[in-house]
Amino acid sequence: MALIVQKYGGTSVGSVERIQHVADKVIAARKQGHDVVVVVSAMSGETNRLVALAKSITDPPNPREYDVLLSTGEQVTISLLSIALISKGYPARSYTGGQVHILTDDVHTKARILDIDDKKMHDDLKEGRVVVVAGFQGVDEKGNITTLGRGGSDTTAVALAAALKADECQIYTDVDGVYTTDPRIVPHARRLNTVSFEEMLEMASLGSKVLQIRSVEFASKYNVPLRVLSSFEDGPGTLIAPEDKTMEKALISGIAFNRDEAKLTILGVPDKPGIAYHILGPIADANIEVDMIVQNVGAENATTDFTFTVHRNDYQKSLDILGKVKTDVGAREVKGDDNITKISIVGVGMRSHAGIASKMFKALAEEGINIQMISTSEIKVSVVVDEKYLELGVRVLHSTFELEKEPIAA
Amino acid sequence: MALIVQKYGGTSVGSVERIQHVADKVIAARKQGHDVVVVVSAMSGETNRLVALAKSITDPPNPREYDVLLSTGEQVTISLLSIALISKGYPARSYTGGQVHILTDDVHTKARILDIDDKKMHDDLKEGRVVVVAGFQGVDEKGNITTLGRGGSDTTAVALAAALKADECQIYTDVDGVYTTDPRIVPHARRLNTVSFEEMLEMASLGSKVLQIRSVEFASKYNVPLRVLSSFEDGPGTLIAPEDKTMEKALISGIAFNRDEAKLTILGVPDKPGIAYHILGPIADANIEVDMIVQNVGAENATTDFTFTVHRNDYQKSLDILGKVKTDVGAREVKGDDNITKISIVGVGMRSHAGIASKMFKALAEEGINIQMISTSEIKVSVVVDEKYLELGVRVLHSTFELEKEPIAA
Repeated sequence: MALIVQKYGGTSVGSVERIQHVADKVIAARKQGHDVVVVVSAMSGETNRLVALAKSITDPPNPREYDVLLSTGEQVTISLLSIALISKGYPARSYTGGQVHILTDDVHTKARILDIDDKKMHDDLKEGRVVVVAGFQGVDEKGNITTLGRGGSDTTAVALAAALKADECQIYTDVDGVYTTDPRIVPHARRLNTVSFEEMLEMASLGSKVLQIRSVEFASKYNVPLRVLSSFEDGPGTLIAPEDKTMEKALISGIAFNRDEAKLTILGVPDKPGIAYHILGPIADANIEVDMIVQNVGAENATTDFTFTVHRNDYQKSLDILGKVKTDVGAREVKGDDNITKISIVGVGMRSHAGIASKMFKALAEEGINIQMISTSEIKVSVVVDEKYLELGVRVLHSTFELEKEPIAA
Repeated sequence: MALIVQKYGGTSVGSVERIQHVADKVIAARKQGHDVVVVVSAMSGETNRLVALAKSITDPPNPREYDVLLSTGEQVTISLLSIALISKGYPARSYTGGQVHILTDDVHTKARILDIDDKKMHDDLKEGRVVVVAGFQGVDEKGNITTLGRGGSDTTAVALAAALKADECQIYTDVDGVYTTDPRIVPHARRLNTVSFEEMLEMASLGSKVLQIRSVEFASKYNVPLRVLSSFEDGPGTLIAPEDKTMEKALISGIAFNRDEAKLTILGVPDKPGIAYHILGPIADANIEVDMIVQNVGAENATTDFTFTVHRNDYQKSLDILGKVKTDVGAREVKGDDNITKISIVGVGMRSHAGIASKMFKALAEEGINIQMISTSEIKVSVVVDEKYLELGVRVLHSTFELEKEPIAA
């Protein structure tokens, strides 16, 4: 018997029939003897309906009132799910974010959770009730309704699991787990049984959109085991947990990629202290986020070449800014390319195994794929290649590291 | 400069365009220098949509969760109206029932207001904000969301006006005031400028559906001047206020009628103490409400005839019960008639003027309308007649008491 927090997203509660199905899944967990707290999103389509209403009045609408509006979406779902559970003979009680006092800061439309009062929930669980909590919402210190921003229901679930010291936080979604890579590119991509928080964070930030990054960070910080499962099919899903000895000992856990980047290079920059700041300062001032940064040591004339990547939407703006920077710092030339893709291998196994990166480079070279940039972290190697090599690169690496096979326990 | 509580019903806020129009009306009052608190209902159709969702799961749904669901309807409206006001340059802040702590008992779906915390609202008004409050909802002592039942937004408005000591509570609706009778029956029926609480209560209970009876009772109890106005046309509406010397001095203020009644008579009942209880006890036990009751003094054999009216929906059930009662008390016969109508004249002027009732009976007699039952109160005379005489009776009485003319100040 465990305490489980389950979270169901908008698609999983998109109709009365699906809500009934969610009730059945909750009941199945109750029948196994578990205490269950359920977090739900608004029914799919509902948030968009509300947004359209507000924006037909004015755009942007007042943020405080916008939060009052959007929070009704989850409130509808908590009541309907509770009605369904009770009608099936399972006592349940719904709570809005305000009712269980999910205290947030006062940054409307993207508030952060500060504290949760778990008393009511513990009392209900003790009485044998299922607790159903509205995701995505809270209240600030003054009692104003706040929302956590899109995808915030995952964060609510993890925060509740942390506050309640739950044994597991289960995120039900429309995929049945985290895969070694996107199955649309590698059909024999394998569902991972377990993945560490750090790996998941790298994969999420690289474009595996199964979970919101913030919820993974939160789970990692509070050591809440997370499990990603399908709402529609039975299965064990993928457990995301602190790295430990019982975990799969793959060198590489997965291959992530990101098609949304563009590359900018400024050539022949005088190589002197503060140059990185002179180049990237104006980019940051324009609110453009920079991902990879590579600076080559200058070979001749005490100059250097400086390359970085940005989101493709910011490509043109970045080029314009670099045009000015070039004159200011006395550089030779600015070049750019928005037909690139980033491919990364991620795995905690890298820490204890040498040669992983060179194995990656060799595999790509054998297919004639030219590597334009390289960046590494403790558990990740990323390369930038021509966009046309995206599928080929991912497939080659997937088979090079034998990700289609179950790893052998160490 | 006054403090005004305005209430707009579902039709008045039925679309984004109408919400914009309501914002303009609120702004007009602000421009006149008034402080304004607005109470709104759910957009028309929204409550029915939510009810249908719940009932497609189970019927009846759990009352606590049903209240959580229905209360979202008003929450959507308060946010949209506040967004509209703010976008037009008028600071506004919305509150759910829970946020201004409209404390109710815990009778879900038909809770009663116990207390209101007016601090937040006073602070906002002092800061120059329009306060927008969700009608129809509150919270119980434990923080559970409650609703006041259909039409409860009127009650919210009056309760807020009482708590805030407002100068006037304005109920905006789709009619432009209270009329001497239904204009569909008497085309020259006249809008009343003022009507006393007592008269309004008699008229409301007799079927003038302009205001919820509970809200009039509440206004009367706390001496809150109520005004009924049209959302769609300008005009002074009708002021419902404590009776005072400046009021119109009509003998009769209006003519009400009720088509929903049925009449039951039990004949030849032994005339002994406790007989009324023996007849009406079983009716009350079946949760049937009795309206008029008339008992004739028995002329012969120490028996009496006993007649009462019930809602037409309860007619058959009442007949069945009386069939059993007949045997129990040894009565002669049970008769019933559901083709009746009740017509009433209402007016505080009756108190000081004799002969009003006989003037009424004479007018009906001259048209050959047979009176089946009579019942009187201090400010009302009701008669039951054959249903076919409804329109004729109302018209005759309307002209007999010259209701189409403005009354002469006393």
